[in-house]
Amino acid sequence: MPATRLQDHSDLYLQQIINDLDNGALYDARSHLHSLYPAEIALLLRSLPIDYRYQLWGIMAPEAMGGTLAALHGEVRIGLIEHTSVKDLMAAASQLAPREMADLVADFSAEAREKVLKKESSSRLEAALSYGGHNAGGLMSMDALPIRGDVTVEETLVYLREQKKMPANMDSLFVVDRNNHYLGMVAVSTILTSDSVTKIGKLMDSAEAISLNMPVAEVATIFEQRNILSAAVVDEQGEVIGRVTIDDVLNIIREEADHAVLRSAGLDEEHDLFSPVFVSAKRRAVWLGVNLFTAFLASWVIGLFEATIDQIVALAVLMPIVASMGGIAGSQTLVLVIRGLALHQISSSNAMSFLFKELAVGAVNGVVWSIVVAVIAGAWFSNAPLGMMLGGAMIINLSCAALAGVLIPLFLQKKGIDPALAGGVLLTTVTDVIGFMSFLGLSTIFLLA
Amino acid sequence: MPATRLQDHSDLYLQQIINDLDNGALYDARSHLHSLYPAEIALLLRSLPIDYRYQLWGIMAPEAMGGTLAALHGEVRIGLIEHTSVKDLMAAASQLAPREMADLVADFSAEAREKVLKKESSSRLEAALSYGGHNAGGLMSMDALPIRGDVTVEETLVYLREQKKMPANMDSLFVVDRNNHYLGMVAVSTILTSDSVTKIGKLMDSAEAISLNMPVAEVATIFEQRNILSAAVVDEQGEVIGRVTIDDVLNIIREEADHAVLRSAGLDEEHDLFSPVFVSAKRRAVWLGVNLFTAFLASWVIGLFEATIDQIVALAVLMPIVASMGGIAGSQTLVLVIRGLALHQISSSNAMSFLFKELAVGAVNGVVWSIVVAVIAGAWFSNAPLGMMLGGAMIINLSCAALAGVLIPLFLQKKGIDPALAGGVLLTTVTDVIGFMSFLGLSTIFLLA
Repeated sequence: MPATRLQDHSDLYLQQIINDLDNGALYDARSHLHSLYPAEIALLLRSLPIDYRYQLWGIMAPEAMGGTLAALHGEVRIGLIEHTSVKDLMAAASQLAPREMADLVADFSAEAREKVLKKESSSRLEAALSYGGHNAGGLMSMDALPIRGDVTVEETLVYLREQKKMPANMDSLFVVDRNNHYLGMVAVSTILTSDSVTKIGKLMDSAEAISLNMPVAEVATIFEQRNILSAAVVDEQGEVIGRVTIDDVLNIIREEADHAVLRSAGLDEEHDLFSPVFVSAKRRAVWLGVNLFTAFLASWVIGLFEATIDQIVALAVLMPIVASMGGIAGSQTLVLVIRGLALHQISSSNAMSFLFKELAVGAVNGVVWSIVVAVIAGAWFSNAPLGMMLGGAMIINLSCAALAGVLIPLFLQKKGIDPALAGGVLLTTVTDVIGFMSFLGLSTIFLLA
Repeated sequence: MPATRLQDHSDLYLQQIINDLDNGALYDARSHLHSLYPAEIALLLRSLPIDYRYQLWGIMAPEAMGGTLAALHGEVRIGLIEHTSVKDLMAAASQLAPREMADLVADFSAEAREKVLKKESSSRLEAALSYGGHNAGGLMSMDALPIRGDVTVEETLVYLREQKKMPANMDSLFVVDRNNHYLGMVAVSTILTSDSVTKIGKLMDSAEAISLNMPVAEVATIFEQRNILSAAVVDEQGEVIGRVTIDDVLNIIREEADHAVLRSAGLDEEHDLFSPVFVSAKRRAVWLGVNLFTAFLASWVIGLFEATIDQIVALAVLMPIVASMGGIAGSQTLVLVIRGLALHQISSSNAMSFLFKELAVGAVNGVVWSIVVAVIAGAWFSNAPLGMMLGGAMIINLSCAALAGVLIPLFLQKKGIDPALAGGVLLTTVTDVIGFMSFLGLSTIFLLA
């Protein structure tokens, strides 16, 4: 089958499905789904407005539900589960690997969960349930194939052939001692190309294993740095418990990147694009409330200078410029620091060098743009001293913005608060307050004298 | 070797290296590097202020330079290349696979590039150079192992053993016809567990191949949706040219996510955290200039109402609240749409449903918060009508913010402009202008009568 699979396909499918549902052509809709991968059906469901979504879900074959639910998260998944009978949920769950099943049943109702656990009574599922969490244990699958280092390539090949079928995406076997303690790993391709009498121990790469409670972000970093496809997961005693494969890591990296962007707008979780209006409104109201507080703080600062503005109205016209430029300059620094912290590029050893550099950049741009705004504003209001106040405030605010852009995320990180969530609000609070205060303050001192 | 590798290690290494360099303990610094993976050395170099960075680079063994340079990008890499002799560059390049080498020599000076090409005169390198670019051709390695479908498992095993060593991270072989045209792929693990007389064609999975000119973002989506570790790359005739492995895709996904965050602050490329002050300042000045233009636009709107502000100074105190809340509400919608477009969740088929939902959310939050601000502002200035103007403007601005948050990214996407880069500026321009205009306009009409 030749290549060329365009992404416009997903738009096309969406349009087709909506047409089918609008026309009551349910059989067509169902057969359109047939050619899709579970992850593609999941994308389709997330993209459908709620009524269409549940209509489509209602005509899906239970066999296709398992993989699709496994590829969904959060609100969308919970909504679909609520629209599925316990019987269909059991059928869906039974098609998944233990780890995915454990992840899925966590979203089930108590009744459905109990039924699935009774039916599946597998020790692997129980283990998967106990290892859940945002760490290597929650990410791993428990189908590692441990072998002893003192067997030969030939014996290994015989052993593998006896397995009949190897787990999906298995590129390596793990070498263990007689107590199942991890020693290293050996690539399947190495076994294939080696002499049949060679001992596995000789072919082994003593790559470090991942500990059960390592946070997923660290697991992702290790995969990125080492260009590996899988790694062994070991418990505190060093015993091999499972393996993490790179396709799971890929999903984690995508999700984390996604969350960082959402958090910057105060949207913390994986929400349904089409959740009901009041649910969405309530969720966003919190963030608006936080920002309203900081907006009133800025207003309060302006209020301190009411008498000055009363005498020189042009100040009211120009003051947003200082605040806005400070916010922009500060957020550039902020983004660099948040990213530097996430990639472990910025730490206590180099934070000072970076702070001085950013201060210098802020001062240089402050001077350059202060001249520009001073000239424009001075000409606009035929008032050179007014322009100079604007320019002076700009230098002050851009320097403070650089300082805040570096220090706020470092402070938040130290306090265990996600800088991507709270950094932007705190920064604009600082740049608004300092922007208004410096411009109106300088003007009060020098223009009203 | 047991597990537990903490990420604090990277901070620790950084501190050690800086100490070593400060104390002139170059031998210690060099031996500290010995235990690190190339990607870890790359991280270290990126995290070092420029003087330290070049000092460390100067004492690195040329053998370690290749992998390290391959793990770096942009400014940092170019800077290091400029500080390396042509002889060392040639040694560094010679350690890389053709694709990585092609990628690296593209950053070399003309002289060094020519020398490497003369020395390495490999047809694979030439091919890699010709396939460069931001598509599957630039991502693939050219070490695919094609086999015919009519050979048996036994014959394949013999053939593989003859290879002595298989390329890194190879989990699958590609099945081709007699003209080297792609038919499907077969996992190495399947070959291992199958009967020796079975024909490879029977074991084949007819997964679609990736075409040479498929954009990398699409390649990434395919890997995410299908949970595969590698895929064949074919040319227009369907002939197998190479393979893409998931570890390359992982890097792409990380970089794209990274760029999306940087672009939102007008930082478009992979820049050095420690680039010289004037270089950084100049780069950021462009974005500040764009924003200065929009800030002056907002000022001009305020200027239209100078006479009104002159009579009611409280308007100047309160007006930033309307603009700021509009900006926050709009950016929440904007982030959802930009993400929805990137994940192919939003398209022409469902954009309208989403727009209406967002408008409703904006209106609900507009009403709720307009009551809050009306009460606070009315009480603050003992002026109920003033509070009502603020509340009314808030409803208008939050509704317009929702509209702008949906339409701006859709419009930019249609025009081929990255919404993550330009969306935020355009949005705040709209919410500033409408915020100031609605509040000051309503007040002019109703309070000055």
